[in-house]
Amino acid sequence: MIPLHFDNGLIPVIAQDAETNEVLMLAYANEEAVKLTIATGQAHYFSRSRKRLWKKGEESGHTQRVVRILTDCDEDALIYQIEQEGAACHLGYRSCFFRTIDGAFIAEKVFNPGEVYANKQE
Amino acid sequence: MIPLHFDNGLIPVIAQDAETNEVLMLAYANEEAVKLTIATGQAHYFSRSRKRLWKKGEESGHTQRVVRILTDCDEDALIYQIEQEGAACHLGYRSCFFRTIDGAFIAEKVFNPGEVYANKQE
Repeated sequence: MIPLHFDNGLIPVIAQDAETNEVLMLAYANEEAVKLTIATGQAHYFSRSRKRLWKKGEESGHTQRVVRILTDCDEDALIYQIEQEGAACHLGYRSCFFRTIDGAFIAEKVFNPGEVYANKQE
Repeated sequence: MIPLHFDNGLIPVIAQDAETNEVLMLAYANEEAVKLTIATGQAHYFSRSRKRLWKKGEESGHTQRVVRILTDCDEDALIYQIEQEGAACHLGYRSCFFRTIDGAFIAEKVFNPGEVYANKQE
């Protein structure tokens, strides 16, 4: 594994649909999350708000099977190329990037968050 | 414009090919860079190493015409969907993500950095 540069213990991770290249979310990983992702083939992150390691889909079932991991020229960012189970966004959209910067919606919900999450923390 | 959440004045920006969805780079913008990007239609960032605003391609000519800007559910990340002039990576690759995390190269150089940059700072 290439030595990665963590900033305060974290590295930004772009989750990207391995087939369509759609960007589904941007999250952060610590070294343990990266190693767990490699070891299990399932995307793991570090939640900055909850301050803990987090397996994507642990509550919702919307897991991410990791096909390939890329790093950039500076080794300070990652791409998880994934197959997304269900949807990536906790608000019910396939991608967290469902709006333009002007607030226009470019996607529709694919699930009802109230039926998937006991609490809406993810 | 949706109010964005900047972390220490910065927000991560994914530069994505507007046509193919290829992720070309991950960089950071401050509020001024976002506003300049909107005003000019050309991608602007904030360089953390050089501590200054930066128009992509200002030295190399490898500018990015911004087609659309997306934000995520938490308003703390952006995607610039762009048309890339030349290549995004200062090392000569179209995308900064030209290696797997194991160090395998998945792309070939499209330009010679020594011929494009007077100094290799970008």
